Amino acid sequence: MGLLWAISCSILSALKNLANQVMTVLQEIENFLPCNTPNLWLENALANPELLLIDHANCEKKAASTALNLIYRYVDNFDLLNKMSRLAREELRHFEQVIAIMKRRNIAYRQISASRYAVQLRDKVRSNDPQRLVDILLVGAIIEARSCERFARLAPYLDAELESFYLSLLKSEGRHYRDYLRLAGNIATEQEIEERLALFLDLERQLIESPDTEFRFHSGPVS
Amino acid sequence: MGLLWAISCSILSALKNLANQVMTVLQEIENFLPCNTPNLWLENALANPELLLIDHANCEKKAASTALNLIYRYVDNFDLLNKMSRLAREELRHFEQVIAIMKRRNIAYRQISASRYAVQLRDKVRSNDPQRLVDILLVGAIIEARSCERFARLAPYLDAELESFYLSLLKSEGRHYRDYLRLAGNIATEQEIEERLALFLDLERQLIESPDTEFRFHSGPVS
Repeated sequence: MGLLWAISCSILSALKNLANQVMTVLQEIENFLPCNTPNLWLENALANPELLLIDHANCEKKAASTALNLIYRYVDNFDLLNKMSRLAREELRHFEQVIAIMKRRNIAYRQISASRYAVQLRDKVRSNDPQRLVDILLVGAIIEARSCERFARLAPYLDAELESFYLSLLKSEGRHYRDYLRLAGNIATEQEIEERLALFLDLERQLIESPDTEFRFHSGPVS
Repeated sequence: MGLLWAISCSILSALKNLANQVMTVLQEIENFLPCNTPNLWLENALANPELLLIDHANCEKKAASTALNLIYRYVDNFDLLNKMSRLAREELRHFEQVIAIMKRRNIAYRQISASRYAVQLRDKVRSNDPQRLVDILLVGAIIEARSCERFARLAPYLDAELESFYLSLLKSEGRHYRDYLRLAGNIATEQEIEERLALFLDLERQLIESPDTEFRFHSGPVS
């Protein structure tokens, strides 16, 4: 009985630690992002469960591609190569998890158009290095942070399987957000990062808050 | 003493099993490939240890890219998506292992040109689906098989760290070769596969045996 009690206590304590870690990441990310996801987007997502999963799968593979593109271009930065390769592996693991859920739910994986979100953020990336790399890393941090926030917002309204999956993603997306910021901090001054973040976060707020034409994982609200 | 003996016996037996598995894969791959790597290529490789590792790192990331490209294009084939995502993760893990070895050895990772090998094999890929996919999968199988054969040929001449790393890669590259062939077998008849393999393997023999201009992991011999 004493042993059972001790095991229960240590499981509870581990769960509490995990919950605390997730809350800390979420708090940090909400402070970082310029606005919360509008409620209308949440309604869009719950009304389009198949599109949500298809576009989520697309986001995971795009995140892996972005990392792989950096691996191709910046071969002289060992820290970047190592972090981006690990990040790509994690995103691909998530991709496998999403498509496994889609398969179990008989959701056909069809090709869908990309949302305006990443395209318009990337459009503001400066074209010469090292500025280009700084901007790509900052955009990466913003996209990971927004994904994290949306997983947290969606989770309470989803079925048990998706809720637990989306909560499990929070921690790694939060880590990726920090990795991207740290890598940018290694090659740019604090002032440059602040200035570029201000510009990108201002645009991000518009993309998240202004009406959009099609529902996607990173879209604005669709009326 | 009895326990130590039992442990030693089971470790020996596990090692024997592993060695047998590796030998089986290698035998299968030597039967599949049209020719062995020429001795002159081996001499080239041992004379260019830095280039060998840089191009090996490039090959791992290219293998991950190829898998990711298939993931982008063929979203309706769950088995393919799942296998390619896992394969890409494994290749990225190898990439991290190669660059860690390069870092320990102070080898600068510089951009180098691609060899003629994959370019010329890909050049013969048919342009319409599903023929295109069949060909890409068969070329994938050939590249993995050749990599496997070269790791095995190189291993005995390398230092202990690289020898053990290259032997550890044999098993997974052998598995990838089989995965590619099996995926091709799911969408093409045996006759189509035989005909296309005959064409690609004939070209592969030329690329492996005829003199090349630059040493690379998949190059022909350089005089």
